[in-house]
Amino acid sequence: MRRYLVGLLLSCPFLSAGQQATETQLVPYVKPIIGTQRMGHTFPGATVPFGMVQLSPDTDTLSYDADGHYNPDVYKYCAGYQYGDPTIVGFSHTHFSGTGHSDLGDFLLMPTVGTLRLNPGVANVPRSGFRSAYRHATEVAAANYYKVKLDDYNILAELTTTARVGFHQYTFPKTDSAHVILDLMSGIYNYEDKNVWTFVRVENDTLITGYRQTTGWARTRTLYFAMTFSKPFDGYGSRNFSGKQVYRGFWGKFNQDDNFPELAGRQLRTYFNFKTEEGEQIKIKFALSPVSTEGALKNLRTETPGWDFESVKQQGQDLWNKELGKIKIEASRADKENFYTALYHAFISPTIYMDADSRYKGLDQNIHTADGFTNYTTFSLWDTYRALHPLFNLVQPSRNSDMIRSMLAHYDQSTLHMLPIWSNSANENWCMTGYHAVSVLADAVVKDNTGFDAQKALDACVTTARNRRYDGIGLYLDKGYIPVDRNRTGVSTTLEYAYDDWAIAQMARKLNRTDIYDEFIKRSLSYRHVFDSTVGFMRARLSDGSFKPGFDALTTSGQGFIEGNAWNYSLFVPQDPAALKELIGGEQKFVRYLDTLFTMHLPDAFFAETEDITRDGIIGGYVHGNEPAHHVAYLYNWTRQSWKTQERVRMILKHQYRNSPDGLGGNDDAGQMSAWYIFSSLGFYPVAPGSPVYQLGSPSVKAATLQLENGNTLFIDVRNQGERNVYVQKVLLNGRELKQGSVTHDELMKGGKLVFHMSARHP
Amino acid sequence: MRRYLVGLLLSCPFLSAGQQATETQLVPYVKPIIGTQRMGHTFPGATVPFGMVQLSPDTDTLSYDADGHYNPDVYKYCAGYQYGDPTIVGFSHTHFSGTGHSDLGDFLLMPTVGTLRLNPGVANVPRSGFRSAYRHATEVAAANYYKVKLDDYNILAELTTTARVGFHQYTFPKTDSAHVILDLMSGIYNYEDKNVWTFVRVENDTLITGYRQTTGWARTRTLYFAMTFSKPFDGYGSRNFSGKQVYRGFWGKFNQDDNFPELAGRQLRTYFNFKTEEGEQIKIKFALSPVSTEGALKNLRTETPGWDFESVKQQGQDLWNKELGKIKIEASRADKENFYTALYHAFISPTIYMDADSRYKGLDQNIHTADGFTNYTTFSLWDTYRALHPLFNLVQPSRNSDMIRSMLAHYDQSTLHMLPIWSNSANENWCMTGYHAVSVLADAVVKDNTGFDAQKALDACVTTARNRRYDGIGLYLDKGYIPVDRNRTGVSTTLEYAYDDWAIAQMARKLNRTDIYDEFIKRSLSYRHVFDSTVGFMRARLSDGSFKPGFDALTTSGQGFIEGNAWNYSLFVPQDPAALKELIGGEQKFVRYLDTLFTMHLPDAFFAETEDITRDGIIGGYVHGNEPAHHVAYLYNWTRQSWKTQERVRMILKHQYRNSPDGLGGNDDAGQMSAWYIFSSLGFYPVAPGSPVYQLGSPSVKAATLQLENGNTLFIDVRNQGERNVYVQKVLLNGRELKQGSVTHDELMKGGKLVFHMSARHP
Repeated sequence: MRRYLVGLLLSCPFLSAGQQATETQLVPYVKPIIGTQRMGHTFPGATVPFGMVQLSPDTDTLSYDADGHYNPDVYKYCAGYQYGDPTIVGFSHTHFSGTGHSDLGDFLLMPTVGTLRLNPGVANVPRSGFRSAYRHATEVAAANYYKVKLDDYNILAELTTTARVGFHQYTFPKTDSAHVILDLMSGIYNYEDKNVWTFVRVENDTLITGYRQTTGWARTRTLYFAMTFSKPFDGYGSRNFSGKQVYRGFWGKFNQDDNFPELAGRQLRTYFNFKTEEGEQIKIKFALSPVSTEGALKNLRTETPGWDFESVKQQGQDLWNKELGKIKIEASRADKENFYTALYHAFISPTIYMDADSRYKGLDQNIHTADGFTNYTTFSLWDTYRALHPLFNLVQPSRNSDMIRSMLAHYDQSTLHMLPIWSNSANENWCMTGYHAVSVLADAVVKDNTGFDAQKALDACVTTARNRRYDGIGLYLDKGYIPVDRNRTGVSTTLEYAYDDWAIAQMARKLNRTDIYDEFIKRSLSYRHVFDSTVGFMRARLSDGSFKPGFDALTTSGQGFIEGNAWNYSLFVPQDPAALKELIGGEQKFVRYLDTLFTMHLPDAFFAETEDITRDGIIGGYVHGNEPAHHVAYLYNWTRQSWKTQERVRMILKHQYRNSPDGLGGNDDAGQMSAWYIFSSLGFYPVAPGSPVYQLGSPSVKAATLQLENGNTLFIDVRNQGERNVYVQKVLLNGRELKQGSVTHDELMKGGKLVFHMSARHP
Repeated sequence: MRRYLVGLLLSCPFLSAGQQATETQLVPYVKPIIGTQRMGHTFPGATVPFGMVQLSPDTDTLSYDADGHYNPDVYKYCAGYQYGDPTIVGFSHTHFSGTGHSDLGDFLLMPTVGTLRLNPGVANVPRSGFRSAYRHATEVAAANYYKVKLDDYNILAELTTTARVGFHQYTFPKTDSAHVILDLMSGIYNYEDKNVWTFVRVENDTLITGYRQTTGWARTRTLYFAMTFSKPFDGYGSRNFSGKQVYRGFWGKFNQDDNFPELAGRQLRTYFNFKTEEGEQIKIKFALSPVSTEGALKNLRTETPGWDFESVKQQGQDLWNKELGKIKIEASRADKENFYTALYHAFISPTIYMDADSRYKGLDQNIHTADGFTNYTTFSLWDTYRALHPLFNLVQPSRNSDMIRSMLAHYDQSTLHMLPIWSNSANENWCMTGYHAVSVLADAVVKDNTGFDAQKALDACVTTARNRRYDGIGLYLDKGYIPVDRNRTGVSTTLEYAYDDWAIAQMARKLNRTDIYDEFIKRSLSYRHVFDSTVGFMRARLSDGSFKPGFDALTTSGQGFIEGNAWNYSLFVPQDPAALKELIGGEQKFVRYLDTLFTMHLPDAFFAETEDITRDGIIGGYVHGNEPAHHVAYLYNWTRQSWKTQERVRMILKHQYRNSPDGLGGNDDAGQMSAWYIFSSLGFYPVAPGSPVYQLGSPSVKAATLQLENGNTLFIDVRNQGERNVYVQKVLLNGRELKQGSVTHDELMKGGKLVFHMSARHP
């Protein structure tokens, strides 16, 4: 009750400034270091919400070791940083957050002193290159601020950002040989020939421009930069590490190794030399652009006109306080750290992908202007359609609408006429399965968040879903399922298509397109075609209609699934759990299925086979570290034992998220794991995006205030909250009891009071 | 006299249309095949004047043979075509004309029938690849039109162009397996890794877009295209010939070998399949852009809205008739062919380098808009400052002014703050010596052709010439010459700098910048510092001031020269031949020097050492095939034996230019050799660009009419012209006798009558 009053008080316009100020400082609860150990794949560096620049230390990045052998550890380095590593190679300007494949790591800067080394060296040989030892004791990782002492050089490195500019502040010792290395070879998931081309122009003694063009995860990607120093360098130079040298012009009219301002090649490292006094700071502003060096320079001048590091840091932290302040919670310090770090991770991507003047590079590699919206990229949709985009519909509806406009621009630019699958920096890599952009579009339309052309959006969904050439769609349409002898993920892809088709149908119904509704609601029943009632699981089928022999419910490989086995994927009918329950055999069998999943003992072999997740990411056989089962804990709501949903949710909240470097049980997956946490800790979850209904679970917060973009405020009050009080006795929305175990988006958006009454005992 | 009347009559507005029409058809005299055999380095294909697209057959292009060995014959293929070759590999869209180094050859198309072959094969193994045998009997090479039968396929190939669009017309036999190969690997001076990246999008069943990004002669160059077929293809595909495959997206969601529309990689060949009836024509329009595929598509739609091949061909030939018609001559058929082919070659480059909407890529790799001018590239200035740009000041002053604006834009974009040396496609390769852009700028300023900011132009010249880091300038300024122990071309570069500095001084005087004049007129005397009076030649000096031992007047290598020996280069004081005469020892010794040069017998070893020129390109020891001596025949004008100038000039005109494939004695050098021909055949020559004075020689035409851009008409009437009547008795300009053996630019631009009286006997 007290906490509820606090919530009320905070919304009161007559509060004194001092009280509000205290509550608006949410940055102290953000611990970017969470997830940087093992498989979280988050990064500790600096960024503003959805920033184009995400500036962070890299501890290692190579896919291949010095001897050219594939580095099996590369997967650890999706975000460039591993908490356990002893050295920092440098600070690069772009990072994916929590992804399961990687790229980026553009433009690594490293300050050094003493003998110039242009080789990064290796972590286990001290001073074998320009990398430096560091200690966590000197490290600060905060929202939009990162600090570390580079012990090998006695240099204090500090980083902050604006949306398009990385701001470095390096405090040097007294030396005649200070260097800043700009490494254009470096990159995350780097390998020979990943760099297609790099280009550098030294415009004058403080300004450098250029670009890095890569292939790989993004097949044809170019990122431009403009970099400026706070004081002129004394000299500079470069080395081309490629065996293939570029043509250097006629008979070497210039010495092109030193102080030569027009450089290009595949494998370039450049350096800039300074003399420094003790404690002297050299600051660097490093702007990015997807368009041109001219665009980068404009971004630099627009966003960071001055040299005040503290002010830039503060502006970014103010942005974070504003964004994080959309949800204010009452909870323990640890829970607040988990919550606000989750919210922070949820607000890192998709990332802004356009210049300050709204120009960006499109999928067609032409330059476009985003007319009336912010263009975004980094769409890890197989992950994020589940809870991240629904979260945005709740607390970032304008941004979500702009993200959809970005997806529609991608569609317009796609010669395949498809919405994005996993798109990044004006490229599509078709990673993972399904066409889940349709879920994001449908969810926004169904929830009336349509700052875009909804009819056109529906057409884009339909065209995408009818592309018979794409990943088994032709087979799916002809047979009602995708045979695994034709497509190795035939079962899970069939299930995902069925769900996506249901989402299209919902959107069509909302938009009064009956023919489309009819077509896709029919397609959405396809999940039935891969259910084998003889084993009680979804199961791989062959082209001849028979189920594939050798069924194994625990194994993913060879069973027709991706990132999930039959135990988890058989529950993937989020669009109709009631029908699923019947398919599995009714109430009793369904509950038993769920109970078994959460309590089974997995053999060691399971973990040997499974990427991405550790034992920490698993409860029984329920795999929280991967996404396909993210809705599963809520499925008890379709039984008479919804208290088990409440129990499981609280268990997952408690065990799968911890406020420590190793606090994530699997990849954060571009915010999806975090979005699950946020919804669940608030007490509800979007089991089937495309539906306006949230399932109620068990909130872990004591209270929450959601400041909605429509001006309404939603108060969540959790009465009798406690570690053991995980069961919900009743829930009241504005005084009316929610007896269905669910609440709708409309109801929440109207604001008011959502009151959970908790108990230590279930019914 | 009769011919003079014809000239007068032509200028009369009361002539009937029929008479004028006959005279305006000059295209029939153009034989693009001239210079395609041996070292002319011209191409036979289609182009409009100064066109961005120069579409021509390639008979071979590789720098390395199939086994990876350097192909010593590659130099022959500067323009992609050698007359003696038995096969055509395909038709590519960009070619240098007459250059001494090469690049380009972008986007090779080849129509074939039968089994699809994606390897070009080799010339000496019939049907070893997609290349085809052809015969000159079926070949037509005309201005803006090229035709050939591809014998291996029974396909008739025809080519024409607009400024930015190549138009192909292929007449097929009846077949179910017609193919058009689009080869993105192919290029002139190709080698492994020359292709940085290539990108293709099949937009629909008739439209393809993409780009080719290369390194090499232009270090960082990207050319975009949009290509459209007159009929839809039945299917298409591609093969990536690189050992390094691109990431193909997640688990091959698509079959990317066939009918997959988004392609990228280093070494791509694509193909498009058709079925054709007997005699069916498939037409292709192929537009280029330096900016984007969007720009290429706009160029395509702007310049070639329809599919009428004949009409596009005719429009281009009309342009040629208009440009060639600026100089109408009376001469023998053979002389007309030589003259108009020379004029044609003179009007091929510099080339337009901007889209129809005036956007282009600058040296800084950003996109700029040419505000009020046409942006040009392909500046082979060491060659073209001598006579080509002076020719433009006479008959293409607006274009020359725009070329200078293009050079000033380059200067603005240059982080080295230098005018172009040898620039191409937004790149600088610093080929050859000197900073001869200053000569081009000075010549225009002195001749009052300043559609640009002349003061700024002077500043650009001064900044360029003061760059101490560039190719020995620091040494030149400190010592007055460039020591050959520091710079292997120290002598010739000193001489060229001295001339260039004189040109800057002339420009400064014209613009009343006395301080600049004083500085540079002093620098212009530096030629004296490399003259060794003990040997009577310009000679290599060492850092200690001594002349380098082992002097050899016939050798280039090791003697401090480039593309010329002491015999030729010692005469390189075009800015002050009178002073040179005295340096060499006065009238008698100077004449003897010149006489010896033109009559000496060279040892065989000379030719073994010399690139670029054959015995055909040499008269005695005078090397016409390279440029440094191009003014030399006119130096007799500074003696009392100017009749020898007349004799030599006529000899050179007769022996160095022939209307046959092997008609050029050396590289046409981007039009410089041709410009020499045009001036000399008209009877005057700009010995020192930057001076308004032309030296009179001996015209080979019988009469000429120059229609000047200022509206004036200059008639040249050569009385008593004849094969043996090479000596000029007197020359009258508008009735006034020119007794100095020279005429000024102003005088010519005022128009009127320039009458040469010829004789078979010299004074």
